[in-house]
This record gives sequence, structure tokens and C-alpha cells, in this order.
Amino acid sequence: VLRRLRGIPLKPLVARGLSMADEMHQRNVACTSLLLRALAAPLAGEADGAAALAFIAGNDQFFLNVAMAMAKAVTDPARHVPGSAIVTAMARNGTEFGIRVAGTGDTWFTAPPNLPKGLYFPGFSEADANPDMGDSAIVETVGLGGFAMAAAPAVAGFVGAGGMREAVDWTRAMAEIVAARHGDWTIPTLDSEGVPLGIDVRRVVATGIEPVINTGIAHKAPGIGQVGAGIARAPMACFRAALEALAGDAPP
Amino acid sequence: VLRRLRGIPLKPLVARGLSMADEMHQRNVACTSLLLRALAAPLAGEADGAAALAFIAGNDQFFLNVAMAMAKAVTDPARHVPGSAIVTAMARNGTEFGIRVAGTGDTWFTAPPNLPKGLYFPGFSEADANPDMGDSAIVETVGLGGFAMAAAPAVAGFVGAGGMREAVDWTRAMAEIVAARHGDWTIPTLDSEGVPLGIDVRRVVATGIEPVINTGIAHKAPGIGQVGAGIARAPMACFRAALEALAGDAPP
Repeated sequence: VLRRLRGIPLKPLVARGLSMADEMHQRNVACTSLLLRALAAPLAGEADGAAALAFIAGNDQFFLNVAMAMAKAVTDPARHVPGSAIVTAMARNGTEFGIRVAGTGDTWFTAPPNLPKGLYFPGFSEADANPDMGDSAIVETVGLGGFAMAAAPAVAGFVGAGGMREAVDWTRAMAEIVAARHGDWTIPTLDSEGVPLGIDVRRVVATGIEPVINTGIAHKAPGIGQVGAGIARAPMACFRAALEALAGDAPP
Repeated sequence: VLRRLRGIPLKPLVARGLSMADEMHQRNVACTSLLLRALAAPLAGEADGAAALAFIAGNDQFFLNVAMAMAKAVTDPARHVPGSAIVTAMARNGTEFGIRVAGTGDTWFTAPPNLPKGLYFPGFSEADANPDMGDSAIVETVGLGGFAMAAAPAVAGFVGAGGMREAVDWTRAMAEIVAARHGDWTIPTLDSEGVPLGIDVRRVVATGIEPVINTGIAHKAPGIGQVGAGIARAPMACFRAALEALAGDAPP
């Protein structure tokens, strides 16, 4: 169906999702519903169309994986820009946190991950939590997730980060460490300011402000899965290491 | 399909829509998408299911008519409550604006409608506008539309009512003329305050604050249809007349 439709444009869909209180990391209810809406009639005529629609409709977070792939597609073309201090990827495997920077190509700068701070499902606590983990932090590198918290005040409560005022504070803090505000992805609750876009390792190091990631919290034992949701900070050591590498490589 | 599903609960759907920046009068993109999501898989298996889904998916305002019927179902049971000053209906036919009040049963209190103030589609102006018109103001009687403006900052811009701050101001002003805040329909951008519920004619007259309605603007000539969107104020004369009738009928 996607091939027949020649794809579904994701940038306007995400723009709309931001105006519907998604931040595309811990809240994807709007984009999941909008994507399903685009697919519903075309899928209805297909074999297993009803089953596919039921699967999508059954998971408010369905769009997260789409958002992750989109974010990777947005940042990857910037992976080899000489001299650029813009982060092109953030990822965690549960034992290391790593970033890639445009000016240093495919090199990963890694450091031990932090423990997320957040709210736990009933019966679980911080003692059960694995350190920050997963590929989904790629959405923060394009200005979504924790960077777009002001668009999604409901998520601020869900990850234990406060109410509307705190949500705005998070977005404002992230604006301190980026190169620009997005021209198309805007936040109605901030009178249509763009989301903070393009993490600049120089600004991270200069301000001491670590990027914030809206994350699910995984149990430290395999097979149990998600036990909460919260925010994690990208460790400063990655950004210092990247900046040192950039300084060494930069033209005089 | 609706019969087979034994209906779709609308109160939680509207609660969710408010958290996704709908106010259910001039903005229904979230509730339309959520309703379609609930219907997609069940409809996919039916004859003409794809056509029905395409029809729903093609109109961001599809849910408005559902919201109107829901609002009428909410207020009608309160139509005969002796002594009550709560408005049970507001409606306009283009030449008269009328309200009904719980304590005065089926009586309509009418006055000439105001002209909406708003933004016009290209090629049209206030000179083309019909006075405020239509049944949709029933949604304001249950705390949606203009009363829930703070939930939908994008709509404030669409109806020419300003940005986020002005949207909050509208909801706060409407809170001055109601009996209560809704317990379940809350506004995340106001740290989950409920929408203003139950217009009290005594408060309208005492404060001089006329209810605000987020309305489409119709052309004054038949057959042309909508030429803009704006806000209209319910005329004070209706509320004065209702209050006088209530005072006359009230026990000493």
C-alpha cells in the first residue's frame, strides 16, 4: 500500500503531530492516528487489511519506530560535513552512550550512560532500572522527544518532569545548545516557535547543559521489558571527547 | 458497525481530543482521527468500508456533527430542573439567537444575533457575512468550542483570536460565567484544569460577559456556504430575558 501511495510525507505529518501534543518519543498518539488515517481506506481493500489496521490502532506508540527511521534519514546525509559540530546521532546499548558528529564522520564518542529519572510502573523502582538504553534517542537529534517537550505537556507528567511550565523550561533549555529552531516543526503552545534543532557539541560543553531524552525505562534483567518512563541526560563526556577530536581536526 | 461495537464511548474520546489540541468546534482533527481509528479495522471488513473510511479521513471536521449530537444528549436531560439557571441550549438560525435554561424548560429566549468577528477566506469580507448562524453552539454549552480555547491554541489563530495567551484568556473569561469546571475534560496546557461547564445566566448578567462561540462564518446569500471563521458572542438580551423569567417563577 505504501508503494502504491508513493509513500506518505512524514515531515508535514510530524508538524501536525506537534500541534496535537505529540513529541514523537514517549507520546505518539496523534501521529499514530494520523498515519492510520492515511492508510485506513487504502488498506481496507487489501487481504489482511483489517488485521493490519487493528494492529496499528492497538498501539499508541506505533509511530515511534517510524519517527526513528525518519530521524535517521534526516541526519545521516549530514554525517560528513568538515568542521561541523552538529550531532548526527545519539544511541545507547545499555552499557555505553554514544554520539556521532557531522565533522567527525562515522566515529562514535562514548561514555557510560546515566540512569533515567522518572516514574515507575506499579511494583517496580529505580533498583530495577537498566541504565539509559536504546536507539530511539535519534529523535532528539532532530528536535523531537525531550527537545519538543513544550509541545506535549501531558508527556512531561508521564515522564515525571512536571507540568506545562516545566515542559516549556525543558524546550527552552535545549534551545541553548542547538544551532537553530526548526522552520516547519513548530510548537503552538509557544506561539509557533520551532523545535530546537541541531545539537552543537560546542554549546553543550560551553553551557554544561546535557541533551535531555524522553525515554522508556527498561528492566535490567532481560525479558521483562519496560518498567517505567522518564528522562535521561546524554553524558557530557561524549561531547567533550567529540569537541577535542573536532578541535584537533579543524583547519587552523 | 457501531451497533456491533455497542457504540463508541465519546466522553473519553473527547477528553483525549482536548489533550490533542481539539476544542471540538472549529478544530476536530484529533477526534476525527481517533474516531476513525476506532472504526478502521471493523469497517475494513464491510462492504463499502473503504469508501466510508475515505469519506471520514477526507474531512478534518467530520467529528463536529458527532460532538453536536453528544452535547445535545448531555444537556437535554437537564431541561426541566426547577429553579436552575444553567443554560441547556444555545442555537442560531441566522435571524435569531436563542437559549434554553434548565429552570424554564422548553422556552426559547431569543434576541438578534451578533455578527462574528474573524478571518475571511480569500475574496470575502465582513460585507459578505451572515449574522451568527447554526446549531453548533450546543458544544459551547458543555464547555467545548470557545470555552475550551486554551486547549487549542492553533484554533485561536484560525478564528482570529490571537495566540496562546489570548486562548488562555478566553477560557479564563468563560470560567467566570459557569457553575463548575469539568471533572474529566481537562486542559493539559492549563495543568489539567477542567473546561468551564454549565453557563449560569445569573453570572452572565452579573459579569456582563457574553459566552463566546467559535464559529464558521456563512455567506449571507444561500448556496455559497462558509466564507470564514471567527468568534461570535451570545447576545446578552437572551440571558437577561431568561433571568427575568426565572426570577418570576422562582420560589420566594
